[in-house]
Amino acid sequence: MNIITLTTDFGSGSPYVAAMKGVILSINPQATVVDITHDIAAQDVRQGAVILDDVSRLFPKDTTHVAVIDPGVGSDRAIIYARINEQGYVVPDNGLLSRLLRRREATTIVNLDKPEYWLEEVSATFHGRDIMAPVAARLSLGLDPKLLGRPHGNPLTLDWPQVQQETERIQGIIEGIDSFGNLLTNITADMFRARPTDERVVIVCGIYETWGIYRTYSELPLGTLVALVGSTGHLELAVIGDNAAERLGLQVGTPVIVAWE
Amino acid sequence: MNIITLTTDFGSGSPYVAAMKGVILSINPQATVVDITHDIAAQDVRQGAVILDDVSRLFPKDTTHVAVIDPGVGSDRAIIYARINEQGYVVPDNGLLSRLLRRREATTIVNLDKPEYWLEEVSATFHGRDIMAPVAARLSLGLDPKLLGRPHGNPLTLDWPQVQQETERIQGIIEGIDSFGNLLTNITADMFRARPTDERVVIVCGIYETWGIYRTYSELPLGTLVALVGSTGHLELAVIGDNAAERLGLQVGTPVIVAWE
Amino acid sequence: MNIITLTTDFGSGSPYVAAMKGVILSINPQATVVDITHDIAAQDVRQGAVILDDVSRLFPKDTTHVAVIDPGVGSDRAIIYARINEQGYVVPDNGLLSRLLRRREATTIVNLDKPEYWLEEVSATFHGRDIMAPVAARLSLGLDPKLLGRPHGNPLTLDWPQVQQETERIQGIIEGIDSFGNLLTNITADMFRARPTDERVVIVCGIYETWGIYRTYSELPLGTLVALVGSTGHLELAVIGDNAAERLGLQVGTPVIVAWE
Repeated sequence: MNIITLTTDFGSGSPYVAAMKGVILSINPQATVVDITHDIAAQDVRQGAVILDDVSRLFPKDTTHVAVIDPGVGSDRAIIYARINEQGYVVPDNGLLSRLLRRREATTIVNLDKPEYWLEEVSATFHGRDIMAPVAARLSLGLDPKLLGRPHGNPLTLDWPQVQQETERIQGIIEGIDSFGNLLTNITADMFRARPTDERVVIVCGIYETWGIYRTYSELPLGTLVALVGSTGHLELAVIGDNAAERLGLQVGTPVIVAWE
Repeated sequence: MNIITLTTDFGSGSPYVAAMKGVILSINPQATVVDITHDIAAQDVRQGAVILDDVSRLFPKDTTHVAVIDPGVGSDRAIIYARINEQGYVVPDNGLLSRLLRRREATTIVNLDKPEYWLEEVSATFHGRDIMAPVAARLSLGLDPKLLGRPHGNPLTLDWPQVQQETERIQGIIEGIDSFGNLLTNITADMFRARPTDERVVIVCGIYETWGIYRTYSELPLGTLVALVGSTGHLELAVIGDNAAERLGLQVGTPVIVAWE
Repeated sequence: MNIITLTTDFGSGSPYVAAMKGVILSINPQATVVDITHDIAAQDVRQGAVILDDVSRLFPKDTTHVAVIDPGVGSDRAIIYARINEQGYVVPDNGLLSRLLRRREATTIVNLDKPEYWLEEVSATFHGRDIMAPVAARLSLGLDPKLLGRPHGNPLTLDWPQVQQETERIQGIIEGIDSFGNLLTNITADMFRARPTDERVVIVCGIYETWGIYRTYSELPLGTLVALVGSTGHLELAVIGDNAAERLGLQVGTPVIVAWE
């Protein structure tokens, strides 16, 4: 499978991204390289883990996903390959797979320690270009991952905030903010499938509250704070026609409570 | 034809764009997906209509263009396919084709209402990913658009400002601002083909005026306000070596008058 | 070879980039078009020359690189093709190849003056779309560059700051700033290969100094100013976990001195 995705904190428009693509295409000129995003906040492994989980699952079987959010580049952190849900992941072993591994298991896990599959010269500061890109290109050509290094134990996973679920009350947090400023929580729709979503439910976040969980943005007037189930199946908070994060001053990590009378 | 373009208001670097690409490549791994832009101002259908018209015409015959500027997502607005000038367009029926349809006619127009061509699960908030992307991918594989739904009437078109043309005077507006800050008008070069373009013509916009219509940016000193015919054949106003929109404080919608003595 | 890269100052997300891709794909629908960057500062030929040199070398043999940083569009500056190190470059002849040509020679150099290989209508302001894109597309289809125009003399090169090398002292400048704010100098690692890199070496830039040249970002505490050899083999200055350019207020052109006791 010729598809390789890239997720980094290099910034949209960074020539470092193009450097990785040049290396990939030098090894596999037929590769289709797709940007997931390069706008992960600098060194924010947690944000990378969320987006990698939400987006990579939409790609075809046998896609190779490369993620370079790598504060430990040059330290002794491993670079690993992991196969999860029939797709391949090439990442520094720093927690980037944490959210994926909450619902899925990694099958093959390899420590990418065989220099013969890397660029000839490896810098100390850009393993994305010198190790991960060439390895991903070779995988896209069909190379058996097991040849790329020794078997590796379970990937490092970060502590991940658990949603607290009681009958009348669910407590989670804001896990991300999208480009529209919508506040994405870690509470999923299936957590309240059996409960009413009309005005008998209240959603509280910071000093704000709103009643009812809506289906779409188009049901309420401009400027209204609304809770709805977003496109990844998570509860989100939005201000109709506005940027909720800026308008309300709420940030990642803020608790979100859903409660029924 | 394997080429699919995307135009959205998701923001450059948004992972929502990658979500659409993942869906497309899952259905047609051979698709070539090209970003037109993702920096349309949030929900600005009018700006999307201008860029879709200016840029899509440069793509090959049978390209499929997908535009997701969709303030009505989740309402009962239709999602349509329209064939215009030998290319296909997949858009919410909200006016995105308005500018294209000023000069061209749509031939096949289909209401994309057959769920068997969508993703299995359709969210209420992201029809770009769940309906438009899979439909575009199937079209790129050669599926007959007529299979995708019932015939649809004429696409909704927005009121579009008309240029007023008199012998000695043309009045239009600023229709867009490009990334250099140049002010793009809705006045086209063929409207003054028979008239002099030397210092006998004055162009007035807001409190500013400039004489003569130039061919290029390189004929005048830095800092000069200049009128010239831009790369899409429209009259534009630029400040040499500077950002005219910021420098002059002019906005989309401001009237522009071209007058001869 | 079907690979074409684009480097411009249009801004990430500019539809002008998509216009070029539309033209390329209309001529060669099989082309793989890769963005190097579109975030070159407006009309900054020097920055374009640095990035084109650093990144293009990573692409495969016979890639065609198109760079549109073109303050002289519409003047009589030539547009040229040059073959350098087994890759092709299509650029306005304004110095964009200056840094590449410091280490390499151009073999074939052609003045792209044959209109039959351009778009039928050529605007005065967007030769990237109307001349460079169609020429690059034809080259990617295997057209012999010599057919595209008359032989051309050596490309224009900008004065390029030389590094002053003495036994105990090297003086260069900050040549660029990357998206992390790291300060990239024009001093390369091979200039001090024979000298100690431990605390016997001091690096001075503006009012700041730091001792020792490190291998990676991960060896020192957050907030430390550190000198290290970056991923393109150049000495760079970084503040661990921070944006050095913003934190220190240093700019491109600032002298950098490396001295041994």
